[in-house]
Amino acid sequence: MIPFFEYNWQVRDEWFAWCSQLPEEELIRFRTGGVGSFLKTLFHIIDVEYSWIRGIQGKEDIVFDYAGYDSLEKVQSLSDRCRSEVIEFLKENREGRATDAVRVPWDDEKFTVGEVLHHLIAHEIHHIGQLSVWARELDLTPVSAHYAGRTLKPFVSYES
Amino acid sequence: MIPFFEYNWQVRDEWFAWCSQLPEEELIRFRTGGVGSFLKTLFHIIDVEYSWIRGIQGKEDIVFDYAGYDSLEKVQSLSDRCRSEVIEFLKENREGRATDAVRVPWDDEKFTVGEVLHHLIAHEIHHIGQLSVWARELDLTPVSAHYAGRTLKPFVSYES
Repeated sequence: MIPFFEYNWQVRDEWFAWCSQLPEEELIRFRTGGVGSFLKTLFHIIDVEYSWIRGIQGKEDIVFDYAGYDSLEKVQSLSDRCRSEVIEFLKENREGRATDAVRVPWDDEKFTVGEVLHHLIAHEIHHIGQLSVWARELDLTPVSAHYAGRTLKPFVSYES
Repeated sequence: MIPFFEYNWQVRDEWFAWCSQLPEEELIRFRTGGVGSFLKTLFHIIDVEYSWIRGIQGKEDIVFDYAGYDSLEKVQSLSDRCRSEVIEFLKENREGRATDAVRVPWDDEKFTVGEVLHHLIAHEIHHIGQLSVWARELDLTPVSAHYAGRTLKPFVSYES
């Protein structure tokens, strides 16, 4: 699973860099599909990942208000901050506890840790696919989504 | 990895069912982003998955001509046919050989089996994200991409 998180984070950072070419009004402009804008999509991906990773750990949910993250810099800074906590969690849980049960305050269903991690991976890739359509609608080349041939930055992996 | 393939196939089948509500001209209509239409996207996902899985096995690449798959039924039938071969491969390789090297005729680079499987999973989820935007542009509710809470059909998994 960890390579998928590393892939997602690398692609996410490339989208932050890509977005910096757009004026702010294009970043926050409502678009059809997904959660509605480039900036809100990136915010949503971060928010969902962070909430579930805290949920797995039985930590209290921290709700971010999108209104407070109205620029690319603020959302990117949120991404970096949340990611460092997610990295710590993944490092500590390398050997996995995939079948442990997870309950979160925003859902009545019970999940497993493995299911949640799969959910987060698919969630981000899916939303990034949406950004790629909006990019083409602006007549711009989107960030590549290719996994194969990409040298992953080892956010979590380390020599031990 | 196998649950991701099962997730992708389940979502793919739900998109086939979803697409059946559209008239053929909407299925083949050119749209901005990705590979350009609902039908071509589904065809492309199948084609890429099948080619790489054959590539991993050192089998000759079989090139499908999109012109021969000009209806939802034909593409769905192609999906079922190719998938049964992919399922066989995944069943035989449950214990993994993720670090084995893979060379394919359409790329000069060398990959590992694990890298290719990650690539295929991300590839399908990404393109499905694109379909979801096009669905909303048609004012229709897309197929849910949710992983958590979905009971996966065990295409590959089995009691042994």
